[in-house]
Amino acid sequence: RLNFIRKFATKNQQYFVDLHPLAPSNLLIDRHMGPSSSEREKMLAEIGCKSMDELIEKTLPPKLPRNKLPDWPVKTEQDIIGELYNLSKENTVAKNYLGGGYYGTYTPPVILRNVLSNPAWYTSYTPYQAEISQGRLEALLIYQTMVSSLTGLPIGNASLLDEGTAGAEAMTMSYTIHNRKKTHFLVSNKVFPQTIACIQTRAEPLGITVHVGDVESFDLAKFPLCGVLVQSPDLLGEIKDFSAFSSKVHEAGATFIMGSDLLSLCIMKSPGEMGADISYGSSQRFGVPMGYGGPYAAFFSAKEEDIRKMPGRIIGVSIDKNGQTAYRMTMQTREQHIRREKATSNICTAQALLANMAGLYSVYHGAEGMKMIASRVHALSSILKQNLQDLGYKVPTLNHFDTISVSGIDAAKLVETFEKNGINIRKIRNDTVSLSFDETTTPDDVNTLVSIFASLKGTNKNICAVDQYNKSAPEFPSTLKRESAILTHPIFNSIHSEHQMLRYLYRLQRKDISLANSMIPLGSCTMKLNATCEMIPITFEGFNVHPHAPLKQVQGYQKLIGGLRNKLCAITGFDEISFQSNSGAQGEYSGLITIRNYLKSTNNAKRTACLIPNSAHGTNPASAAMAGMNIIKVECDKKGNISIDDLKQKAQQFKDELACLMATYPSTHGVFEEEIVEACEIIHHYGGQVYMDGANMNAQVGLTSPGHIGADVCHLNLHKTFAIPHGGGGPGMGPIGVKKHLAPFLPRDVVLGLGGQGGQISSSHFASASILPISWAYIEALGGNGLAEASKHAILNANYIRKRLEKYYGIVYTGDQGMCAHEMLVDLRPFKVTANITEEDIAKRLMDYGFHAPTMSFPIHGTLMIEPTESEDKGELDRLIDALIKIREEIHEIETGSADKNNNVLKNAPHSLDEVISVNWDKPYSREKAGFPLPWVRTRGKFWPTVARVDNVWGDKHPSTVLPEIDFHL
Amino acid sequence: RLNFIRKFATKNQQYFVDLHPLAPSNLLIDRHMGPSSSEREKMLAEIGCKSMDELIEKTLPPKLPRNKLPDWPVKTEQDIIGELYNLSKENTVAKNYLGGGYYGTYTPPVILRNVLSNPAWYTSYTPYQAEISQGRLEALLIYQTMVSSLTGLPIGNASLLDEGTAGAEAMTMSYTIHNRKKTHFLVSNKVFPQTIACIQTRAEPLGITVHVGDVESFDLAKFPLCGVLVQSPDLLGEIKDFSAFSSKVHEAGATFIMGSDLLSLCIMKSPGEMGADISYGSSQRFGVPMGYGGPYAAFFSAKEEDIRKMPGRIIGVSIDKNGQTAYRMTMQTREQHIRREKATSNICTAQALLANMAGLYSVYHGAEGMKMIASRVHALSSILKQNLQDLGYKVPTLNHFDTISVSGIDAAKLVETFEKNGINIRKIRNDTVSLSFDETTTPDDVNTLVSIFASLKGTNKNICAVDQYNKSAPEFPSTLKRESAILTHPIFNSIHSEHQMLRYLYRLQRKDISLANSMIPLGSCTMKLNATCEMIPITFEGFNVHPHAPLKQVQGYQKLIGGLRNKLCAITGFDEISFQSNSGAQGEYSGLITIRNYLKSTNNAKRTACLIPNSAHGTNPASAAMAGMNIIKVECDKKGNISIDDLKQKAQQFKDELACLMATYPSTHGVFEEEIVEACEIIHHYGGQVYMDGANMNAQVGLTSPGHIGADVCHLNLHKTFAIPHGGGGPGMGPIGVKKHLAPFLPRDVVLGLGGQGGQISSSHFASASILPISWAYIEALGGNGLAEASKHAILNANYIRKRLEKYYGIVYTGDQGMCAHEMLVDLRPFKVTANITEEDIAKRLMDYGFHAPTMSFPIHGTLMIEPTESEDKGELDRLIDALIKIREEIHEIETGSADKNNNVLKNAPHSLDEVISVNWDKPYSREKAGFPLPWVRTRGKFWPTVARVDNVWGDKHPSTVLPEIDFHL
Repeated sequence: RLNFIRKFATKNQQYFVDLHPLAPSNLLIDRHMGPSSSEREKMLAEIGCKSMDELIEKTLPPKLPRNKLPDWPVKTEQDIIGELYNLSKENTVAKNYLGGGYYGTYTPPVILRNVLSNPAWYTSYTPYQAEISQGRLEALLIYQTMVSSLTGLPIGNASLLDEGTAGAEAMTMSYTIHNRKKTHFLVSNKVFPQTIACIQTRAEPLGITVHVGDVESFDLAKFPLCGVLVQSPDLLGEIKDFSAFSSKVHEAGATFIMGSDLLSLCIMKSPGEMGADISYGSSQRFGVPMGYGGPYAAFFSAKEEDIRKMPGRIIGVSIDKNGQTAYRMTMQTREQHIRREKATSNICTAQALLANMAGLYSVYHGAEGMKMIASRVHALSSILKQNLQDLGYKVPTLNHFDTISVSGIDAAKLVETFEKNGINIRKIRNDTVSLSFDETTTPDDVNTLVSIFASLKGTNKNICAVDQYNKSAPEFPSTLKRESAILTHPIFNSIHSEHQMLRYLYRLQRKDISLANSMIPLGSCTMKLNATCEMIPITFEGFNVHPHAPLKQVQGYQKLIGGLRNKLCAITGFDEISFQSNSGAQGEYSGLITIRNYLKSTNNAKRTACLIPNSAHGTNPASAAMAGMNIIKVECDKKGNISIDDLKQKAQQFKDELACLMATYPSTHGVFEEEIVEACEIIHHYGGQVYMDGANMNAQVGLTSPGHIGADVCHLNLHKTFAIPHGGGGPGMGPIGVKKHLAPFLPRDVVLGLGGQGGQISSSHFASASILPISWAYIEALGGNGLAEASKHAILNANYIRKRLEKYYGIVYTGDQGMCAHEMLVDLRPFKVTANITEEDIAKRLMDYGFHAPTMSFPIHGTLMIEPTESEDKGELDRLIDALIKIREEIHEIETGSADKNNNVLKNAPHSLDEVISVNWDKPYSREKAGFPLPWVRTRGKFWPTVARVDNVWGDKHPSTVLPEIDFHL
Repeated sequence: RLNFIRKFATKNQQYFVDLHPLAPSNLLIDRHMGPSSSEREKMLAEIGCKSMDELIEKTLPPKLPRNKLPDWPVKTEQDIIGELYNLSKENTVAKNYLGGGYYGTYTPPVILRNVLSNPAWYTSYTPYQAEISQGRLEALLIYQTMVSSLTGLPIGNASLLDEGTAGAEAMTMSYTIHNRKKTHFLVSNKVFPQTIACIQTRAEPLGITVHVGDVESFDLAKFPLCGVLVQSPDLLGEIKDFSAFSSKVHEAGATFIMGSDLLSLCIMKSPGEMGADISYGSSQRFGVPMGYGGPYAAFFSAKEEDIRKMPGRIIGVSIDKNGQTAYRMTMQTREQHIRREKATSNICTAQALLANMAGLYSVYHGAEGMKMIASRVHALSSILKQNLQDLGYKVPTLNHFDTISVSGIDAAKLVETFEKNGINIRKIRNDTVSLSFDETTTPDDVNTLVSIFASLKGTNKNICAVDQYNKSAPEFPSTLKRESAILTHPIFNSIHSEHQMLRYLYRLQRKDISLANSMIPLGSCTMKLNATCEMIPITFEGFNVHPHAPLKQVQGYQKLIGGLRNKLCAITGFDEISFQSNSGAQGEYSGLITIRNYLKSTNNAKRTACLIPNSAHGTNPASAAMAGMNIIKVECDKKGNISIDDLKQKAQQFKDELACLMATYPSTHGVFEEEIVEACEIIHHYGGQVYMDGANMNAQVGLTSPGHIGADVCHLNLHKTFAIPHGGGGPGMGPIGVKKHLAPFLPRDVVLGLGGQGGQISSSHFASASILPISWAYIEALGGNGLAEASKHAILNANYIRKRLEKYYGIVYTGDQGMCAHEMLVDLRPFKVTANITEEDIAKRLMDYGFHAPTMSFPIHGTLMIEPTESEDKGELDRLIDALIKIREEIHEIETGSADKNNNVLKNAPHSLDEVISVNWDKPYSREKAGFPLPWVRTRGKFWPTVARVDNVWGDKHPSTVLPEIDFHL
């Protein structure tokens, strides 16, 4: 304990470790690392190293530049929570009518506590392993079903990153639908400005010309339009029936895209009913706090025929091998083996946790409850409108759902007046403001607003005060009113009490494996501890503010983000950070766009060649393609390293077009490559920039850095390296760091006017701002030395696994001294030959041992990539190793013929609880061998797969993306 | 939805329900009730009532006085949380050195979130049903093992209510050990004053004379002492080796009792090693917030030979019928079928949730970590002591652990000076103060204290500032230093990372059924919804204050408790409330002591006869006996009601001695008795008082009230009726309400000088103060009408079950119109004859259906008492009913001979997961019939018992109360 801490802080002083007896009992660093000091000694001995220093020296190439972090002290858990609380209090939670894509909402406490604040939900991984993920797959299907029902379009996806990028994805989807042949796109000028900006950013590198204007007066025949995008309710609050217009768009041969608002759709005609081909928008107001802009789930829905062109993940319904209904991610090829340079989207994650919250919010309120909330929002805003008109204000909003515009006023002055009353309203134009109502708006609020508006007119007469409100408030015109039923599935019509909701949430939870059960050894995904003290602050009330709130109201966030920026600069060796990316892939895109804009500024616009090694993450070529780059593959040598010869040759060959190299370090082969510095130098020599993929930063922090190695830009996966949980498939956070010369070209936010000269990448400037406290807490808790220790322990854990496993399995690549980095590739290819056993069989069999499988077949088919992280203790590592060794024995049984080649524990894995209990057990081995293959599997309290192996072929043949009619016994 | 709400409140206004379209979406009342309005209609139809009004009129006797509550409006969930937050902020969280039994501590965030804030832990019930409670039984065994190890005494119990009552229980235990023949008891005058006061209160009615003084100079031969009680560290912080003294006490033939401090015992010689027979104290400082005095777990340990005389619950180790290790409550006879009038303790609950937290805290820190915390506390206080002495202060504390006294000063002035600096220190005497250090004390804090003390001496010289602190700080004298190992069990030496702790907590959680799984239909225990919005506020920082903080620092608590008092007065029809009781049984005791003191004041000291109907809760006679009363049994008539004839006869017979009647209403037979008002009148006629047991208040609230019926005093189980969760076996909260004439005799707090003239009942005046926000929230959320609706829905749910079940089972008692109250007794006695099936068989078989059994064999053997509460929906009620009907079929199979009499699904129940998976399945029925007896058992995601039926006989023969050496795969 404590023996790797150099310094700890109390509130007023910092103490060095020689004051050890007075060190506090509540340091996270003592709890973040898995191995105890005695375990560490044993593991080092197994690896054959005398010390951690020796381990690191043997692992890192001698010529790799080192980056020793400043001696930031460690902090206690309670100080972390307390400091974040104080920062949250430096934000002003104003009464908010800003709207513009972000709305007040109540997170039902039962969801707040049991989903958002529950490690069983927030620490789970993307549901690639369907059999142990049926709970959140069901929740995501609910989300899709809800989106489909409300938007009136049959296929909803499992969420996108935010509304702006969803709009941009809709554009690129329409571009793809028309085979990339129509290069013009029309956007209504009444769409949210951040959405327009995201669309413009995305369009430019793809060569799409975006027209922004009044769509209804636009000559649709003038350009070859791939799509037309409108929004209702629009920026001014107007809602419109686009039925006739959509026909015109279709006649013009374009795709019709509608930005929409889920709450409005509870009582308003749907995009599908108006003829839209695609609809998108935010589901934030379904119970997800605004969080200064994110994270929340953007929804996206489309027609059946376009399903294969849809961006993002889609959850589908299939059966398991016994014919039982089972959920899974559908069309996985779109995702896992991403289309690389042929990609039409670089989105490979989702906002699962937030989508789940939104879907469950609609379950909680049900069809009737949702209609009531929508009706109330509409009724209250109608009362405001009536009052404003009666007071003599000009209300340009003809038909509204929740937003009223007021014009003919001095907008700046009005905004200021309201601000003085603790109220935020939106300035739209110099003479126009808007006010958006939401679930949290009360009759009292309306009275307050009316009285302020009245006093400005020198009267105190509430012409139609709320308490005289007549139930028969003005409704929508019949053309806008929803006639079709919403949320008809029983799940939206069964739950009305908190007990029912609680039990349903627990029923789902029990089907999902998470870090609360066992380690999740996913290569390149760094499933480390998401410590409770890091997680508690994200739900502090003060962090739930509108992203467009005046800067003086968000001083807490500004300080927090500023502090985080400074530390991330030191960690990465860079000069500036942009937080405007909601995921790693968005970070890549953001970095490449920054490079692109930099190159343009230096008259190097022709430089569009992007060198990408074969070992790169699939998102690299996808992001590069989206950034308008040409992908040039670089080979790897026999040791799995980037072939310096090939790199040199390609750099030279494309020297005039060379934009950049994209490299991951340590490589996805699990090795600290010797020649990385040289690789950077070669690129620079030929006028290119170096982009470093931060997926493997967990092996770099405090040891080396992208900046020191020679990169010009990198993204950080805060949800991998910096302790943000994976949320069952999102949220993510992928800020980018850049060298000074690139800083002026970082993304900007058109609404706030912040950032560099780059395009807008995400809807809000700090992307998933409300989860940044997690990374802030992680860094503050561990201190400078502790962060380096985390990297060292990650390397220790990986090499311990490597060492113990290599007697049983081949390790595909290691460094010069036989060491791996923080992860390794385990070779399973021989077993396909000797026993007809695939990596999938082994992955599924691991479930029988209570483990989530490592990453499968990436970057090399027939391998598993294991990354243990620093947070796993020796006992847990040993259990994983023992399971893999036992599986090797099980393979041996097949190899020697003592087990059947087709009917064996591996081919039949995973064994669901139903199977082992069934009377019809007919396997050639015992139920116990199936379910309890090692003694501790039983004694530790096994996590059981709830379905047997999912039939992907059946699912592909019978595509279904909405919740089936299942038995809802709560 | 909403159709039973009359009025709802926004912040500024109250709206009536005719403003329905504007009613908010976040009202708890919509979620608290189980049945939806359409379900309600169906259920009423099944019962044969046209309306809720008709149901209630048919259920309540016409002459029963009604109590319509004021029209308090309902409030939203977020307003409830917000108002409680604001109240918490009205408390001042000062830097606290008050000590005196309450200390600062850090709740490890992983325990805070995953135990204290987790419904799976806090909504579970007392682990009577061992097979589905193995998780918290293991946690409680850890607690016992920890207590036993630290105190050096072999048997620890599973916690008592607080330190003061634990001291009093130690006294009564010593009294019992000496067969109630020695009636004198000696207490050191350096014991905490609240403990002395609790002892004095308990001693008086039992006829024990308490001597308080300097024990070492006391002539031990002068009186027949049953016990001698000392404390170390004592009030002044002194720690002493009592080894020699304990021999003297033993020579005098008395039991030696040591109050102790668990943290000090990590580095200090234990009571056991000093020869103590009993040790007790608080485990609050093991991670449990001070919470203004409670709840926390008091520990209690003793020698093996005295185990049967120990108060409270004891968890033991046994095996299940397959020989697998299984935990259970041991010596259950002591508890379930309490000794009634022969009781030596009325304690029948524990502080399970808090004991679990304390035990898990010691697991989290481990043996080494605990020693480090203790050493640090000691080292820091040593630095203070050294500084004070160097500054010329007089420190009378010779040897200390964490507390230093300073004398020769003006205590009041000193306290005031520190208070101005936001620091609380304790005034002991006019010239003496004390300062207690704890886990949260930092080196900075010591510097601050020293600088204040220095400035008072006119110097700013820190003679030995912390940063010059020498590691070789003064240690204890060797006679006080602990030489023996602590916490040697592997569980205290295995967990060092947060991941390990998280997974261990989840491993335990998965073994326990709770309200997060399914209804817990316990008769007389009212397992209603513990809504999340009621639970969130209890962990607000502002509620974690010292109970002896100056009143001006606890204005938030005072307002909260004052508001709650007023509403409880209206609900009970009483004039005053005392909160000084930590459980229902303590409430009974408190009420009876109040009656006793009242009678004394009116020269009726001879009135000690207490009439108790046969149907009363077992705690009634126990509490009465402890209050020095003679129990006179009153018979019930054939309908299960109190026999008015017998009551009259007994009242007349004992008219000169008559103290009171204790009655439960509605009766424990599940009926609103017709004659309750007459019964009260009879008692009053003969000069007695009426005590009403509030266990069944859930059927009274808003319909009638104890005060209206004629009672003079009642207790309320806030943990039953007012939404405080059961915590897996505590905390509880049993305030009493009294009529005006009894108010002056309510309990008082000797430390704060608050309350009436009565004795001290609990260590702190507001007992488990920090859970009072839950009941406050419940009442505020439901409003006046909503509280009545809760009672009505409880009656609805019970009668629906009654109606559906009565075709299959006998219902033992109903009212005149065939209705039950809010619970009912289901008659199982016939099946003993027809099929050799007992209530236990049925209770265990219910587990196979995923249900916790109802209350067994109380108040009548061979019955189950079912209380569904208002929070269960029709679907859940139907599942329970269907399970019971199916079980009736299974009994029929035995009756008809189609199932074996001894080897059948009932006798073999519950079927553990291990059993149904086993290769050795040899039952005459299928695994599915065993494990999935109805289709929804499978589809709802069954909760599985982790062991088979526990062997109580084996456990009784092989008593063991510490955690066995089991396999700790985390």
